Amino acid sequence: MKNVEVCLTPDLVKTYGVENKIVVVVDILRATSVMTTALAHGIKSITPVATVEECRMLKEKGYLAAAERDGKTVEGFDFGNSPFTYMEPALAGKKLALTTTNGTLAITRSVSAEEVVIGSFLNITSVANYLISQQQDVLILCAGWKGRVNLEDTIFAGALVELLSNDFDSENDSAIAAVALFRMAQDDMMGFLKNSSHAKRLKGLSIIKDIDFCLQRDTYNIIPVLKDGELVLREPSYVVAGVGRG
Amino acid sequence: MKNVEVCLTPDLVKTYGVENKIVVVVDILRATSVMTTALAHGIKSITPVATVEECRMLKEKGYLAAAERDGKTVEGFDFGNSPFTYMEPALAGKKLALTTTNGTLAITRSVSAEEVVIGSFLNITSVANYLISQQQDVLILCAGWKGRVNLEDTIFAGALVELLSNDFDSENDSAIAAVALFRMAQDDMMGFLKNSSHAKRLKGLSIIKDIDFCLQRDTYNIIPVLKDGELVLREPSYVVAGVGRG
Repeated sequence: MKNVEVCLTPDLVKTYGVENKIVVVVDILRATSVMTTALAHGIKSITPVATVEECRMLKEKGYLAAAERDGKTVEGFDFGNSPFTYMEPALAGKKLALTTTNGTLAITRSVSAEEVVIGSFLNITSVANYLISQQQDVLILCAGWKGRVNLEDTIFAGALVELLSNDFDSENDSAIAAVALFRMAQDDMMGFLKNSSHAKRLKGLSIIKDIDFCLQRDTYNIIPVLKDGELVLREPSYVVAGVGRG
Repeated sequence: MKNVEVCLTPDLVKTYGVENKIVVVVDILRATSVMTTALAHGIKSITPVATVEECRMLKEKGYLAAAERDGKTVEGFDFGNSPFTYMEPALAGKKLALTTTNGTLAITRSVSAEEVVIGSFLNITSVANYLISQQQDVLILCAGWKGRVNLEDTIFAGALVELLSNDFDSENDSAIAAVALFRMAQDDMMGFLKNSSHAKRLKGLSIIKDIDFCLQRDTYNIIPVLKDGELVLREPSYVVAGVGRG
């Protein structure tokens, strides 16, 4: 039977290893939710970069460029880490460069995986069905917060493990813990998260609307994957009706 | 208000830092349960060492020596990692050298803390009361399993955070997750743990009796602390009635 494991922060990824696995990178608030939203609304590709400087260089080359640090848009960049920014029809077909506090690091640490998939509540069922259709073991890699474990990514991991449980062995301690937390939280995720350190940070930035959006399930039926350093849609993916793609 | 945080594995301890904190080291199955039991039954001191070789050298110097790797007693050592071994009255007053797969590493990574305290269900209330009486912030450091998170240490961390919750700020994500898991598990800890990876490993070694014992609460009223490289009892601690100490 295939195996699914949960790695609660990128700082622990070495103890699991990514080789020959499909790694699902998760940064619910908000990087992987933003990536999913942007690609679903027709952004052509997203280049995740580790540093603000790399992001600036791609901006000079004509990319749309988004840089977030500690929840805020970095000065000099037009785009930050709110999913609503990327719903503009005018952005469809363009290439985006993106750097965030945690999510892009998790991608960087996964590059030697068999495949890197972007997961969020917004596309959780699409991702689950894709993983079930493949032959590889799966590692769900939570981006966490600056090396620490966070609640929202852990709960998502639990939700995804639950969707995979008929097809994967998930009896490792992190997966068991994540599923238990998800079951406890699922009826009132916002309530469960309201005391979390990250929700508090974000609350200070007045983005409750973003959090609400990022906790919605199956808004998009797409599978973003990393290909040659860019996040693109893997077929079959279905963009939002009426939005053209370049 | 004082702060209590939970670090789910020693591989994450750098993201928290131990300076000026009391670190509670936790390895429920079974290192810190064994340490608590041995000191409660009159062992004079325990020297935690990282390697089997160091342990062997102390054995040659006349220490009782216990070495465990992957749940089993290392060849050439008389003592392993079962708490029942250390209840012998004949061992009271002797010095013990100990190396284990995970627990001793967690101690090694804590040496620059203000103080290192050994925690287990067997002495949880004594440890909680001691922490409440002190002025320092607390880091509960779970030993985990070879760098990974495990359920039993996480659940203990949640139980201890709950005991501290009136006196400490505990609103960090790892602490919130640990408390949630403890509340879910507390009525049937053995049942909750039976699918955990470590309980399965131990089950293969036929030590269910050890696990039952290690999940008992407040068997001992003692506070083991690290002092000059040795674990000893901090006053006030109360050894088991009738057992002399050398």
